[in-house]
Amino acid sequence: MALPRSPLAPDHFPELPEITGVRFASVAAGVRYKDRTDVMLAVMAPGTAVAGVFTRSATRSAPVLDCQAKLASAENDTAHGAAILVNSGNSNAFTGHYGQTSVAEITRSVAECTGVPAARVFTASTGVIGEPLPHDRIVAQIAALNDGLDATAIEAAAGAIMTTDTFVKGASAKIEIDGKTVSIAGIAKGSGMIAPDMATMLVYIFTDAKMLQTALQELLSQTCDRTFNCITVDSDTSTSDSLMLCATGASGVDVTGHAEFAEALEAVMLDLSHQVVRDGEGATKFVEIQVTGAMNDHDAKVHGLSIANSPLVKTAIAGEDPNWGRVVMAIGKSGAAADRDKLSISFGDVLVAEKGWVSPNYREAAGAAEMKKSEIVIKVDLGLAEGQSTVWTCDLTHQYITINADYRS
Amino acid sequence: MALPRSPLAPDHFPELPEITGVRFASVAAGVRYKDRTDVMLAVMAPGTAVAGVFTRSATRSAPVLDCQAKLASAENDTAHGAAILVNSGNSNAFTGHYGQTSVAEITRSVAECTGVPAARVFTASTGVIGEPLPHDRIVAQIAALNDGLDATAIEAAAGAIMTTDTFVKGASAKIEIDGKTVSIAGIAKGSGMIAPDMATMLVYIFTDAKMLQTALQELLSQTCDRTFNCITVDSDTSTSDSLMLCATGASGVDVTGHAEFAEALEAVMLDLSHQVVRDGEGATKFVEIQVTGAMNDHDAKVHGLSIANSPLVKTAIAGEDPNWGRVVMAIGKSGAAADRDKLSISFGDVLVAEKGWVSPNYREAAGAAEMKKSEIVIKVDLGLAEGQSTVWTCDLTHQYITINADYRS
Repeated sequence: MALPRSPLAPDHFPELPEITGVRFASVAAGVRYKDRTDVMLAVMAPGTAVAGVFTRSATRSAPVLDCQAKLASAENDTAHGAAILVNSGNSNAFTGHYGQTSVAEITRSVAECTGVPAARVFTASTGVIGEPLPHDRIVAQIAALNDGLDATAIEAAAGAIMTTDTFVKGASAKIEIDGKTVSIAGIAKGSGMIAPDMATMLVYIFTDAKMLQTALQELLSQTCDRTFNCITVDSDTSTSDSLMLCATGASGVDVTGHAEFAEALEAVMLDLSHQVVRDGEGATKFVEIQVTGAMNDHDAKVHGLSIANSPLVKTAIAGEDPNWGRVVMAIGKSGAAADRDKLSISFGDVLVAEKGWVSPNYREAAGAAEMKKSEIVIKVDLGLAEGQSTVWTCDLTHQYITINADYRS
Repeated sequence: MALPRSPLAPDHFPELPEITGVRFASVAAGVRYKDRTDVMLAVMAPGTAVAGVFTRSATRSAPVLDCQAKLASAENDTAHGAAILVNSGNSNAFTGHYGQTSVAEITRSVAECTGVPAARVFTASTGVIGEPLPHDRIVAQIAALNDGLDATAIEAAAGAIMTTDTFVKGASAKIEIDGKTVSIAGIAKGSGMIAPDMATMLVYIFTDAKMLQTALQELLSQTCDRTFNCITVDSDTSTSDSLMLCATGASGVDVTGHAEFAEALEAVMLDLSHQVVRDGEGATKFVEIQVTGAMNDHDAKVHGLSIANSPLVKTAIAGEDPNWGRVVMAIGKSGAAADRDKLSISFGDVLVAEKGWVSPNYREAAGAAEMKKSEIVIKVDLGLAEGQSTVWTCDLTHQYITINADYRS
């Protein structure tokens, strides 16, 4: 199924900086798709710290379970290099013990070809659930992948991990610290089955900054809560989602506790997460939902996600209908604290509702004009306390149904 | 917008028994719709016990708040009659203090015309949120409604409360107790914004059984948890949902603690709740999800609703795709306990997945044949303990988008 490029896509793939100590390769292994690349390999030099955040699904895939075990293991030692192998087309999820065999076979082969210890070889698979992964086709390509590793091949790697994505996703940052340059480059895939707790997303971020693995993990987890865990396309959470951050240390700059680096990383992660929403299946509108005045930040996020996940809100946005009544409904059903007579709702800068009713100065034409934009901001102030959160989503369109009613055929 | 009758609708409206002590009338008051009835009045004789269950939305409508206050009040005395007035077209929700004025004006007029005390006059409104209810148009018709009250006019009353419904909904039961006949007759509306905690549904059930108000309320609340709180169309919860049960006592049969009556009531409520799902916006499939083997009944319901609300599961059903991987995904994301290697999934009687993988005897053709049916059963056994729950939903189709992207225009 060839999908048209999302109307919300950026003009072009950004120019990403090379990250010293990381090389990429990709190949068409024929896992499921014809005539396109579907496997990528990234190999990191010794000294690289690795951190990861994964789906919390109770039915998570064999590769996810394997990555989690390896990151928690004492053998995850930065003295060695590290490798990441990802395939698209088949998620190797709910494939019983055969799934673990596939992971073991791929890991063994990557370790053998790259010289990286098996305990530092991480894998991910994305695509259809419940079908055996034809890992032989992947294993057959690993020596060639290893021979083709190249520090400049990140865009091709990003292309190989796509499933229903309509554009390749990348983002980067460069900062100066003590006269030295620290670079961050990341790639992502994902366009459906996207919801907090990591949805069907695969994200790999690389930096030449230096940081202890424990600090890197903590920074990644915290930043994920404000970025990838604040986006939703369809409220469905995948069995395979993986976000990994690799710090090679090649810049020689230790960024532990460094606020400027944390901000740069957050900007890259936010950029990538927004690109995932912009490629939401069938999306025609990019929607930012700003919630303020909640009892606390958690409540604000609950309200924001209730609005962002409401099929009635999302179809109204698709229809360019300033149907703020459905926003009221979504706030009401969220379970978090709200007071009908204290909340106010704006579309962009147009105040729509306040004090328990439509705002006296609101004109439907003003609301309708906001809804015609391709980027829509919905602001909700609960008027209760200081809690706030921002979440991002897209609209729910006929194209989402078309894509998902016929995905496997 | 004229919608075609749901393909899942029953052949015809059932013949409902007259309930002694209840009379109905309906009228076209022009609240919003043209050329159709939109207000119904039901008046019950003195001696009638009244119970109610309502939306838990934090932004619930003025009529809902009014009903809840009245049911809790000492003035809710069965010595007096009772009345219910319902309008469609406008939900009188999020209409500030004006909303309360509308309720008060309608209540005052109904009390005046019918002789029922204002404290026993209950109202409901369903339709667009956030627009002032033109209550004058309703008040202008109340005397005529009162003059036209008729014990046989229940079907017309059910027609007057519809919004996007494509068929009129009713159900009944008759049981013999001690040689006397006890009858139950109920009507309902609702087709979108349907989710547990009472969604956009209005349901009114009448019986000539005799029961104390406190016992009636307890029975209604318990039965609601196994019927209306087990259905979902789109996971969205309305600000207006109301379910009321009125027992006139005219049969002279006290049914307090009577199991056969409780079963008959549950059958009527289940029937009405299924009709709501069968009229789910855009629905082409009626889906029953049976969850067994969960840690407890609550966990079973959490899993069932996670499957029933998943856009990816619902679009797969629309596409007649036996995509059991999405069922695995929905179980995994629900938050309730699950063990990948212990769960099994069947479509109808076809065992699809077990022991963490596709069942060895499963053939895609068998699963596909199940999905072609208009009534689909998905069975999930978690293999953990004895918890169980059954929930009902429908598929997610292009027609849902069409209806909801353009509801207000």
